[in-house]
Amino acid sequence: MERIEVALIGAGRMGQVHGQNAANHPGLRLRYVVDPRPAANAAMCAQTGAAPAGLEQALEDPAIRAVLICSTTDRHLDHALAAVDAGKAIFCEKPVDLDLEKARRAQPRFEGVPFLLGFNRRFDPHFRALKQRLDDGTVGRLETLHLVNHDPAAPPAGFIPGSGGLFKDFTIHDLDMARWLLGEEPLEVYSVASCLVDPEIGRLGDVDTARTVLKTGSGRLCVISNTRRSGCGYDQRIEACGSAGMIVAGNPALNAVIAQNDAGLLGAAIHPGFASRYALAYRAQIGHFADVVHGTAEPEAGYADGIAALALAEACGESMRDSKVVRMRG
Amino acid sequence: MERIEVALIGAGRMGQVHGQNAANHPGLRLRYVVDPRPAANAAMCAQTGAAPAGLEQALEDPAIRAVLICSTTDRHLDHALAAVDAGKAIFCEKPVDLDLEKARRAQPRFEGVPFLLGFNRRFDPHFRALKQRLDDGTVGRLETLHLVNHDPAAPPAGFIPGSGGLFKDFTIHDLDMARWLLGEEPLEVYSVASCLVDPEIGRLGDVDTARTVLKTGSGRLCVISNTRRSGCGYDQRIEACGSAGMIVAGNPALNAVIAQNDAGLLGAAIHPGFASRYALAYRAQIGHFADVVHGTAEPEAGYADGIAALALAEACGESMRDSKVVRMRG
Amino acid sequence: MERIEVALIGAGRMGQVHGQNAANHPGLRLRYVVDPRPAANAAMCAQTGAAPAGLEQALEDPAIRAVLICSTTDRHLDHALAAVDAGKAIFCEKPVDLDLEKARRAQPRFEGVPFLLGFNRRFDPHFRALKQRLDDGTVGRLETLHLVNHDPAAPPAGFIPGSGGLFKDFTIHDLDMARWLLGEEPLEVYSVASCLVDPEIGRLGDVDTARTVLKTGSGRLCVISNTRRSGCGYDQRIEACGSAGMIVAGNPALNAVIAQNDAGLLGAAIHPGFASRYALAYRAQIGHFADVVHGTAEPEAGYADGIAALALAEACGESMRDSKVVRMRG
Amino acid sequence: MERIEVALIGAGRMGQVHGQNAANHPGLRLRYVVDPRPAANAAMCAQTGAAPAGLEQALEDPAIRAVLICSTTDRHLDHALAAVDAGKAIFCEKPVDLDLEKARRAQPRFEGVPFLLGFNRRFDPHFRALKQRLDDGTVGRLETLHLVNHDPAAPPAGFIPGSGGLFKDFTIHDLDMARWLLGEEPLEVYSVASCLVDPEIGRLGDVDTARTVLKTGSGRLCVISNTRRSGCGYDQRIEACGSAGMIVAGNPALNAVIAQNDAGLLGAAIHPGFASRYALAYRAQIGHFADVVHGTAEPEAGYADGIAALALAEACGESMRDSKVVRMRG
Repeated sequence: MERIEVALIGAGRMGQVHGQNAANHPGLRLRYVVDPRPAANAAMCAQTGAAPAGLEQALEDPAIRAVLICSTTDRHLDHALAAVDAGKAIFCEKPVDLDLEKARRAQPRFEGVPFLLGFNRRFDPHFRALKQRLDDGTVGRLETLHLVNHDPAAPPAGFIPGSGGLFKDFTIHDLDMARWLLGEEPLEVYSVASCLVDPEIGRLGDVDTARTVLKTGSGRLCVISNTRRSGCGYDQRIEACGSAGMIVAGNPALNAVIAQNDAGLLGAAIHPGFASRYALAYRAQIGHFADVVHGTAEPEAGYADGIAALALAEACGESMRDSKVVRMRG
Repeated sequence: MERIEVALIGAGRMGQVHGQNAANHPGLRLRYVVDPRPAANAAMCAQTGAAPAGLEQALEDPAIRAVLICSTTDRHLDHALAAVDAGKAIFCEKPVDLDLEKARRAQPRFEGVPFLLGFNRRFDPHFRALKQRLDDGTVGRLETLHLVNHDPAAPPAGFIPGSGGLFKDFTIHDLDMARWLLGEEPLEVYSVASCLVDPEIGRLGDVDTARTVLKTGSGRLCVISNTRRSGCGYDQRIEACGSAGMIVAGNPALNAVIAQNDAGLLGAAIHPGFASRYALAYRAQIGHFADVVHGTAEPEAGYADGIAALALAEACGESMRDSKVVRMRG
Repeated sequence: MERIEVALIGAGRMGQVHGQNAANHPGLRLRYVVDPRPAANAAMCAQTGAAPAGLEQALEDPAIRAVLICSTTDRHLDHALAAVDAGKAIFCEKPVDLDLEKARRAQPRFEGVPFLLGFNRRFDPHFRALKQRLDDGTVGRLETLHLVNHDPAAPPAGFIPGSGGLFKDFTIHDLDMARWLLGEEPLEVYSVASCLVDPEIGRLGDVDTARTVLKTGSGRLCVISNTRRSGCGYDQRIEACGSAGMIVAGNPALNAVIAQNDAGLLGAAIHPGFASRYALAYRAQIGHFADVVHGTAEPEAGYADGIAALALAEACGESMRDSKVVRMRG
Repeated sequence: MERIEVALIGAGRMGQVHGQNAANHPGLRLRYVVDPRPAANAAMCAQTGAAPAGLEQALEDPAIRAVLICSTTDRHLDHALAAVDAGKAIFCEKPVDLDLEKARRAQPRFEGVPFLLGFNRRFDPHFRALKQRLDDGTVGRLETLHLVNHDPAAPPAGFIPGSGGLFKDFTIHDLDMARWLLGEEPLEVYSVASCLVDPEIGRLGDVDTARTVLKTGSGRLCVISNTRRSGCGYDQRIEACGSAGMIVAGNPALNAVIAQNDAGLLGAAIHPGFASRYALAYRAQIGHFADVVHGTAEPEAGYADGIAALALAEACGESMRDSKVVRMRG
């Protein structure tokens, strides 16, 4: 397979994950790392054999056919638009932007552009196995969903102000999963939330514990359960009920060891965080992007999916603030 | 232990369960069965050694110190009031009545009367083990609940009109469990529902699939998941998340046998219905009632609990109909 | 159903279990309790409504059609022979006797007598579910077995001298299960053992930890794992491997509650002992005996099964003592 | 970290696994691939960036500090001795040789040589977690082990003649695990076997289904369960019983998805074979070898461990053939 050259924009936490996966992929070559912080850039290059570069250099190099946008959230859209102008294929971390209207205005610019949005959970082997069981009819026709997305521990308070709030920063993953699995657009949104984990989060105007209920046109119901602090690791589960049974994607344990003594049964903890829990998903996602770049696949989650999830997240916030049910625009 | 004599009012489905358990209990003697249907009455008596009797005879016999009210729902309150007048201790199947105002008006009559309401799930050993884990601090302070109450298959359409609807007939169990576990009164109620199982249920003005979200004064959140048809048996689970972890009471399997072949793993089904699933709970409930009658325990679920659950069920219905959040009266 | 009258011989630990189950069975009436210890006898009678009686009285009463022999092991055979002479159907606790030759000599006396030996595990719903999975071909043709029979804690040393030793007292259950599941007679026996639990057991000439391997004529292999002290409750499992997969009957947990916190997963203990673990098996066993007495079933485990298991237990002892493989007589 | 240069000898099935892991390790550089088959050699080089070389060239190059010996079993010892002469550190696939006496004679040559034998299971995270639970005292002092090693499907008959037979080829892994976990040398060995999977294996003088029992000096007992065809994937489990409970390392499922419908519970299959099941173990093993080469670790499994396991495997064969218990030479 030809190794197509790509540039990484942003060598932070997610940039390191995606950059390394791109470097290891037999169909990609990580050529440039674009990050203004010299140390982060150099570390990434040392690890992958890439060269540091400025944004312009990377975008102007015709050998570069694709970019991985892992910059800070407020730069995603600018970088994506610059990449569009330069004719590159785009992998972009979620969300496309925190401002729904701004994101909607830019949408026409992405028509026909190979654009994969970083909704990594669609690529998780457990969730894909659940979807396959749904699709193969093991439990009949889908009726309801329960999505559990619990972070292990609250972020530092400093993270909150620029995050967009719980719904746009965190629930957005579930809103995308809901759309992916429901196969229909949610038309009604209800969210209720509390600040039970860290009062500082409340003082900053955000919440840390929420429940959201979605209803689709055909009457399918979806509950989303979120907390910033599970107390037991990174709790990521999905439950789907159909007309002929249910399917549960549980938390994979860290190992298959069970002890039994007078205290009862003792088993392994679940994954401590996203890095190990979704390691295979991140790898599969870059593999899918490689297929997109090579022209053998259409992006499974595109710009429009980002818009749709963002609109739902905004509805969640509105529902919570006004304590009412929000109807989506058709 | 002295065997205190009791009378059973109503020898239908639940009357048979409670009557048999009373007959087997070393602290109770089932003396009379009151049921106007001769065949049902005779069958119950043959099985337990009790004698058929009319309501008056049973209530006027001073040897009878307690009654088990298992008549049809529309007769619960009348029978309970008659028992109050006769000075009997009362076990009454839920709900006390479908009419909240009527039930509230009668409430003063039950002051000081030993009255146990048939919220059997409080006595289930799995749910009690979950509560004990909560109380012993294994997962810190309770923050959220998820209650799953899925019937195996929809009732015949003829059952719907007199049932009081999904919330008063079915969700009421969960509303009581929520109050029991939350340790706080829910102040906000949101319910959304669909008719996905049987369109006939919809034509009769009821729903068969619902999600309810409760919020308490301190911000605890509780989701209730209901369907009339799980497709996989009687799905009865509880999940409690605390500040330091979570506790799940899963479905006990019918047996502990697991096969593994090329198709994967094959395990046993869950209980097909309430009779086997809650057999131990029903037995423990009558055991608790025997303690109440013997004066060694206070009823764990009394008349006021029935009122509270009924008021929440009414709020669920109002929320669903008006598609709005309902606030409970203080 | 007619209630056939039965007499219980021996109101000790097992007598109480079987006597109560017989008293509760709709097809049996426990009429007499035969036990020379007045207190034990009276307690059993008070609990069941039976009357105390001497052995002769019970056997000479023509209304008594069956006896439950739960006396001490050294009296089983005498009581069984007396019951044969009196023309009663017999349920007898295992073993028929500790002396294989004596038991073999008496065998002709039991020809044509309805005789059920107390191999309770054949009636356990988990093991029966495993056998059904085997019989229905889910994992192909049976090739090997692994039987785990671990007592929770070592018996008092005073129990050892009269017990017959680990193999005749304890492994005998597994030897019967092996025959039941293998569908073939074991032809080769190897046992190896240690005294790891309590050195006093060793001083008394017995062992407390053993492994036994059986081989049948067609080459099926069966491992039996025994210890007198599991440290984690009553560990009772079976694993069957076939040509197309495997089946495991695991330990049913005391409840279906799982907690997850930073320490990992915490689940319920397993059953603490035989009384609760095999409660359903004991009940089903008496139900089967009722069918035998009513003439609607043939005993699932008869006198010859007792002889066969005892002969294997003796071979286990010989193999262990001489550290050699023992071949069974055809 | 400095990348120390290594040469791979043999680019077959296991060579590809180890070569790729070495190429990816940050402390190693795979410089040469030695394999006389041009296609296999070229494929391995293309994948890793190594260069093809002859054995002499690789061993004579002073930059090469270590070799990975993955040649056919009959060449292991010759290649290892050549590497000793060239002063290289050695990773060698198991077994060192099929001829115990030959392997023993060569043993003095490996004194002081950094030599890691390919007993990959010691590096499996599940089995290491079990060992850690054992070591931390969760279940008291170890008393017995049960090792399950079931291949998914029988090898082609052509593999049998050169394999050394079931015990030397397959059971040898368990014999090493037994020594690793027991912490004592087995003194008594009993093996019994059948040919149940493929009669052709029997015609070639081998067996396909076996049970082995080991006893150590202090009386610890270990059962090893082997079959060439599980019918349900690569069944790899360990059960350890201690004085205060038990620990089970079960089969990790392919995913955490469980469906429940009227047929019962449906879960994922287990790993289909060694490549995926032990992928993490192989990686950790090369990581450990890198530590050995860098001088920061002593080999966890050395030449003497290979001899000890081989001697036990030979005893298994003798026990089976003569149907007797074999005592190990002190």
